[in-house]
Amino acid sequence: KSLSMKFYLISFTVDSNKQEIFQRKKNAVLVNGVILNGPITDSKAGEKFVEEACKIIMEEVIRKAADVTEKVCEWQPPEKLKKLLDLEMRDTGEPHQRLLQLCQDIIRYSVKTNHPRFFNQLYAGIDYYSLVARFITEALNPSVYTYEVSPVFLLVEEAVLKRMIEFIGWKEGDGIFNPGGSVSNMYAMNLARYKYCPDIKEKGLSGLPRLVLFTSEECHYSMNKAASFLGIGTQNVYFITTDERGKMIPEELEKQVQRARKEGAAPFLVCATAGTTVLGAFDPLDKIADICEKHGLWLHVDASWGGSALMSRKHRKLLHGIHRADSVAWNPHKMLMAGIQCCALLVKDNSDLLKKCYSAKASYLFQQDKFYDVSYDTGDKSIQCSRRPDAFKFWMTWKALGTTGLEDRVNRALALARYLVDEIKKREGFQLLLEPEYANICFWYIPSSLRKMEEGPEFWEKLHQVAPVIKERMMKKGSMMLGYQPHRGKVNFFRQVVISPQVSREDMDFLLDEIDLLGRDL
Amino acid sequence: KSLSMKFYLISFTVDSNKQEIFQRKKNAVLVNGVILNGPITDSKAGEKFVEEACKIIMEEVIRKAADVTEKVCEWQPPEKLKKLLDLEMRDTGEPHQRLLQLCQDIIRYSVKTNHPRFFNQLYAGIDYYSLVARFITEALNPSVYTYEVSPVFLLVEEAVLKRMIEFIGWKEGDGIFNPGGSVSNMYAMNLARYKYCPDIKEKGLSGLPRLVLFTSEECHYSMNKAASFLGIGTQNVYFITTDERGKMIPEELEKQVQRARKEGAAPFLVCATAGTTVLGAFDPLDKIADICEKHGLWLHVDASWGGSALMSRKHRKLLHGIHRADSVAWNPHKMLMAGIQCCALLVKDNSDLLKKCYSAKASYLFQQDKFYDVSYDTGDKSIQCSRRPDAFKFWMTWKALGTTGLEDRVNRALALARYLVDEIKKREGFQLLLEPEYANICFWYIPSSLRKMEEGPEFWEKLHQVAPVIKERMMKKGSMMLGYQPHRGKVNFFRQVVISPQVSREDMDFLLDEIDLLGRDL
Repeated sequence: KSLSMKFYLISFTVDSNKQEIFQRKKNAVLVNGVILNGPITDSKAGEKFVEEACKIIMEEVIRKAADVTEKVCEWQPPEKLKKLLDLEMRDTGEPHQRLLQLCQDIIRYSVKTNHPRFFNQLYAGIDYYSLVARFITEALNPSVYTYEVSPVFLLVEEAVLKRMIEFIGWKEGDGIFNPGGSVSNMYAMNLARYKYCPDIKEKGLSGLPRLVLFTSEECHYSMNKAASFLGIGTQNVYFITTDERGKMIPEELEKQVQRARKEGAAPFLVCATAGTTVLGAFDPLDKIADICEKHGLWLHVDASWGGSALMSRKHRKLLHGIHRADSVAWNPHKMLMAGIQCCALLVKDNSDLLKKCYSAKASYLFQQDKFYDVSYDTGDKSIQCSRRPDAFKFWMTWKALGTTGLEDRVNRALALARYLVDEIKKREGFQLLLEPEYANICFWYIPSSLRKMEEGPEFWEKLHQVAPVIKERMMKKGSMMLGYQPHRGKVNFFRQVVISPQVSREDMDFLLDEIDLLGRDL
Repeated sequence: KSLSMKFYLISFTVDSNKQEIFQRKKNAVLVNGVILNGPITDSKAGEKFVEEACKIIMEEVIRKAADVTEKVCEWQPPEKLKKLLDLEMRDTGEPHQRLLQLCQDIIRYSVKTNHPRFFNQLYAGIDYYSLVARFITEALNPSVYTYEVSPVFLLVEEAVLKRMIEFIGWKEGDGIFNPGGSVSNMYAMNLARYKYCPDIKEKGLSGLPRLVLFTSEECHYSMNKAASFLGIGTQNVYFITTDERGKMIPEELEKQVQRARKEGAAPFLVCATAGTTVLGAFDPLDKIADICEKHGLWLHVDASWGGSALMSRKHRKLLHGIHRADSVAWNPHKMLMAGIQCCALLVKDNSDLLKKCYSAKASYLFQQDKFYDVSYDTGDKSIQCSRRPDAFKFWMTWKALGTTGLEDRVNRALALARYLVDEIKKREGFQLLLEPEYANICFWYIPSSLRKMEEGPEFWEKLHQVAPVIKERMMKKGSMMLGYQPHRGKVNFFRQVVISPQVSREDMDFLLDEIDLLGRDL
């Protein structure tokens, strides 16, 4: 009786196909109370749901990304937002109309990182091409480990890595896309360690001398995270003093290497930064490479942010000497707008070091008796098992714009940054922290009440409180978003980042006007 | 003159907006040869491109996912596929029509993991709800580290983690979504190490006694990867013997812990597996928890694959004792079809251990003077900096199906697995490797030429060659995909994995018929 009841329910929802259901009923197979005949998914309804949702996405996210009159964010504090959204997962599912309403709400209260006035992070804007690649990826739902399940995406990754390697200036190399620049930096650290002492893979660090690596004070915080995760320890990251522009001082590096040797530690790696997170500074790679060569140290360049300057013939000199690096982290999801995340680790070595260092030879994935060239099964180069085809997003944009189009984007972003710098210099109440090299423009806004005050402790203390208040006001208004931070003894200052081709000088003017408007009473 | 030429080109492409262009021209600002007025993106053309591409995706991927008469894959060997696809990135970009053709090609030659007869990995099928969440994610392009840029997705992650923690049976806990179960296992290993000796974060492993962890012979290969990455060393992973069904033998674990202690090593962690990769075996968690308690060892359960059984009141007994674990890895992207990747690491400790262990306190992201409750800025719990909102995909499916709907999916997959097992037992030429506990059905196909042969070395050697040939034939035909592997002394056998609600008993029958058809001449 319960069986026929179930069939009644099925026929009620899939009423289009009565003949088929009748046939199924005749051959019904019931195991553990479950009818196993025919698929139970209502694919027609599912497809319709996807179509309706796509319309909402098109309207509420993609079209509005080009509309500067829309709000960047619809700020709500956590407790209130919880009430506005219906987050609870219940025993019973919700109907499609209700789900579509939820999609609207999710979008409404999310920050529009595509908006022309989202300047808060090292990524921004919309790239229609990478977006299409990302939709394809989500629809196909691949995992990139073996050629057998990801033939196209493995070849795409190979092709993209090859071109990135050319732009670094290496004759050959290897690489892999990772979920984030932090992970790329970890990969490099582990790879350098493996090269230094392959035994560590099996024996571990216990009983070994203290391994030491060097990076600048201005490096990304992932260096500390990597050192602690890899069992090296944050105390064994020796931070090298930088000059007033945030660039590693090579002479200080030399001193620290010698210090580590005197201590009986084992220096194995220098991590230079090309485009630091806050200041956008570029370490002098050529001079650092000299020191690495002299001491036999692996040179890794964290070019997660600055790497994209390699696409510009005008600006690639910022990374002069990068071809001498042993490994490079470079995130096309930042200035090249490939979408979170698209992060390559590139390795100069071409002796299959990635595979030697990372392989675990899982027999269920990497069978050697396959009927095709298993060198395309690159999954054993990775710490991940399932891995997303992130190279594909960058490939699509590259295809669409060409190398010249990518170069134009970089040139334009840096020209806009230059324009903003000049405007800041002209305007009363704005003060540059330093002359930038790249697309990070760091500056203070000094409200009129502070403009005549002497630059003593009281001034700095008061100035420190200005940026957080302006940030709060701009978010509650939803007019724009940019970041602020204190940094190495400097009180809170704004960091403006210019990336997207949707942005124009009008937005730069707006940015300064708006800060002034929001902060003039402070 | 060159300036007006440039404007001519712009007005040629964006001819709809002449008045605006005229205005811009009047106020033209040129920096480093770049005109900075107005956005340079043609958003109308971009939106149209996305719309056209979405039509292709809808037609060629999403609709065909429900069509069992389509091919699972369009096999081409690597060198030939390179020629069929136009992978090269050139100086000049390609027009939209050409790009749409490329999208068609990319889809055509990609494996259809959504297809009802894709049984090759531990994920499969299409879930329309998580797919919509993934499209929203890609369109919004968020990064989940601070409430300020990801308010909605941080709250969603919190809500999903809370429910998953309930299903494990903990009263409270913490967690984070990671790019893959392998990464979750690494997180857990590092967390256990931090708990064992917090000093390691700063001081590293150098000079410390040898840390040792225990896991079964049948564990996922990520255990070895993690041990080597974390500087522990693969030799310090002590593999515990399993019984004939692939389950860790608790008495053997006890012996190995004692052995490690005798050697002067420092045992700190047991990694049990709930749902092994090949056999789908579940370790006896309750007994293992007893041993961990006795010896003061952290118990991590890798339930990446088997965790979804917790959603089923009928099958959750497979994980009996999981509430005693200190941490659990569980991937809803597998049986619950949330899309690659959706992987949670859940932690019982509620003293902010994740944050203590992982924090690097980056001042540019995690300012403490923000105007909201910064405890929602969970980015410092992670080794990643930018991180995708993977919890959201699972949340959407959960909302759509309800807990009952998720439970039904698990029950149905396991009922189908049971049906297949019974069919294999009935059919001549098919031999089960072992009675399965879960959705992995491991079996040999014995072609008629071998059916009367004695089970000696020659028999096994010949049988070893059968699965690879059948696999090659099914892929070239494109009729279905399932995996094979040799395993722990057993020659190549098939591993069938049942997941998707699109799959029915008819597909199980087809699978066996097709293997017989493809292999009967061998």
